[in-house]
Amino acid sequence: MTVAVVGASMTDFGERDAFVGELLSEAATGCLADAGVTADDLDALYVSNMASGEFEGTTGVVNALAHDIGALPAYTQRVDQTSASGGAGIFAAWQSVASGASDLTLLVGGEKMTHLSTARSADVIASLTHPVEYAHGVTLPAFGGLAARAYLETTTDADPARVREALAAVAVKNHDNARRNPRAQFQKEIDVADVLDSPVVADPLRLYDYCPVTDGSAALLFCPESVAREYTDDYVRVAGVAGATDTHVVHERADPTWMGAVAESAERTLEMADRHIADVDVLELHDMVSLLEPLQLEALGYADRGEGWRLAADGETTLSGPLPVNPSGGLKARGHPLGATGVAQAVELYRQLRGEAGDRQVDARRGLTCNVGGFGNCVTTSVLEVGP
Amino acid sequence: MTVAVVGASMTDFGERDAFVGELLSEAATGCLADAGVTADDLDALYVSNMASGEFEGTTGVVNALAHDIGALPAYTQRVDQTSASGGAGIFAAWQSVASGASDLTLLVGGEKMTHLSTARSADVIASLTHPVEYAHGVTLPAFGGLAARAYLETTTDADPARVREALAAVAVKNHDNARRNPRAQFQKEIDVADVLDSPVVADPLRLYDYCPVTDGSAALLFCPESVAREYTDDYVRVAGVAGATDTHVVHERADPTWMGAVAESAERTLEMADRHIADVDVLELHDMVSLLEPLQLEALGYADRGEGWRLAADGETTLSGPLPVNPSGGLKARGHPLGATGVAQAVELYRQLRGEAGDRQVDARRGLTCNVGGFGNCVTTSVLEVGP
Repeated sequence: MTVAVVGASMTDFGERDAFVGELLSEAATGCLADAGVTADDLDALYVSNMASGEFEGTTGVVNALAHDIGALPAYTQRVDQTSASGGAGIFAAWQSVASGASDLTLLVGGEKMTHLSTARSADVIASLTHPVEYAHGVTLPAFGGLAARAYLETTTDADPARVREALAAVAVKNHDNARRNPRAQFQKEIDVADVLDSPVVADPLRLYDYCPVTDGSAALLFCPESVAREYTDDYVRVAGVAGATDTHVVHERADPTWMGAVAESAERTLEMADRHIADVDVLELHDMVSLLEPLQLEALGYADRGEGWRLAADGETTLSGPLPVNPSGGLKARGHPLGATGVAQAVELYRQLRGEAGDRQVDARRGLTCNVGGFGNCVTTSVLEVGP
Repeated sequence: MTVAVVGASMTDFGERDAFVGELLSEAATGCLADAGVTADDLDALYVSNMASGEFEGTTGVVNALAHDIGALPAYTQRVDQTSASGGAGIFAAWQSVASGASDLTLLVGGEKMTHLSTARSADVIASLTHPVEYAHGVTLPAFGGLAARAYLETTTDADPARVREALAAVAVKNHDNARRNPRAQFQKEIDVADVLDSPVVADPLRLYDYCPVTDGSAALLFCPESVAREYTDDYVRVAGVAGATDTHVVHERADPTWMGAVAESAERTLEMADRHIADVDVLELHDMVSLLEPLQLEALGYADRGEGWRLAADGETTLSGPLPVNPSGGLKARGHPLGATGVAQAVELYRQLRGEAGDRQVDARRGLTCNVGGFGNCVTTSVLEVGP
């Protein structure tokens, strides 16, 4: 059965004075309104959330949401795949419809994090890594620095300073896109010098290479394609969706700059969609750190090993380039509320494919999302395309 | 597509000197061995777990498990539906196969809890309730006492002392069954007087009315029925599976002794199975507290409102009765490691339907599991039947 997306919504991303449940409700009700349905039409409700228990001392957020929006007695479930929870939610929601278990499934991803100290949020996030690495203090930002060092010194033959500037250009481009996205956390233009002058986080990477801590929620509504026109004439088709894992101990990988799970997940997704990567017009990638954008472009086959940085250096991934990447602003500038991110990626493609992306609109009939958990430990990808 | 179960396993339940990841690995490898497959045959791996982050400070348990058992690059996801996480995992694993996303899915449920203080584990579990109730100290055990009071005084017209004894008989029966289950936490015979003399937890209920705190893990292997014989001649068919929610604020329900989500979920499940409740030969119910067993029997339609206690009083639910309930020993005596419980219920039915249940074997070709989150806030049910 082919599955369609017929509604989308997201809250403002940034520092929000609200509990996670309130953010989830805001995105959920926005999405239902977008599709012109009410909560009691739902057969199933999935919530992508990594750590409401650790972050707010609240579990049962799915039951609470079903109650708050009036979705009873719809089936409810929380989906967790650490920072790839949103993408895993897309796969779960797709399965609920494709299996025949549900004719109308709402997926809501969200996280509330900015009330925590950086030490606390970094520690919870680091607890997703393998204990053998966690015990040595290797947090996610540290993985970024270690991998960037390896990328500059080993993976690529190019001048390290030029590659370093290209990584900064990823952040600059994503900030530039976010300025055109009213929901994005950052609305501030930056330049390469700003990135290279920002404080060191994990050498050679600096503060502006990294995504911020963010509160926010995003939602999508799924149904069988056969009934999609009941909700909207401009539905979006889920042409493919899949996921894959890589070794949980990052230092056991032959090359930490090769995103093997991205390659595997995308291969499965494109096979399901019966498409080639060259058929994809726009990408929403997981730029938790600037380096991850070129690494994903390499794993997806857009560039040879060690050459992905050139797409940013040459401006190919800007809104006006041949392969726009992260028109939303990405994790770097739209923000990264863990469980919301993968959902927000698909919300952006929904807007782009329907021609509703305003000042950041690109020309696209097909897009791909890539949501990464840990440092490539687990990945979900989806291919969305213009429906009718 | 019809889905089959072709392998099952569970660890010893009780106090285990192991991390949750070790328990998950033990059940997972046992299940793979039971079906004669290796981890690299898996397309997908689901873990049902409520709170590894709160209980052990560890997230990412699914990636860790995929790594530990060698399941890479299988898709991985954690399923959380509080104390119904195991049942939700069955629904998720079923959807993964029924949607065509996976041809072989391993589901592993597990939780590690006994290292915590009772105050800490009770607080984490209580955090799944609505804040308006949680803030007043209404924990899950307290809900049991409040509902039992309402049941004795309002729901039933019978002599309260006789009904109270019948609730004790539920615990006695489940202990008696557990003595025949070598994996069960309690191997100790008790009688009605033991229950009625045990310390008060939430009047009128006492310590022996409640399930214990438990460590443990259980696993099931799912594939399309069309290929089930490749793994075993005695496969078990998932005839139906579904879930439903009730109001998250328990005191907003018209009657806290009516398990509405159980009724709704079972109706959907039986409709999918194209069966009537009278076609079910054996039940694994969610006896977090003794009262819940008769309440579920009423919601399932085996008894009128306020009459479910009579089945225990009359011995109808014993191993030799016409409707055996919780042959495994149930949550009360097999134990209740949150995320494992719903999976363990189906593991018991798998053994019963294959005639492998030893001293606790009942005569059954079809069974039903009922896994409850919160105090009936969310429910998943499944109907399993002899395959070939």
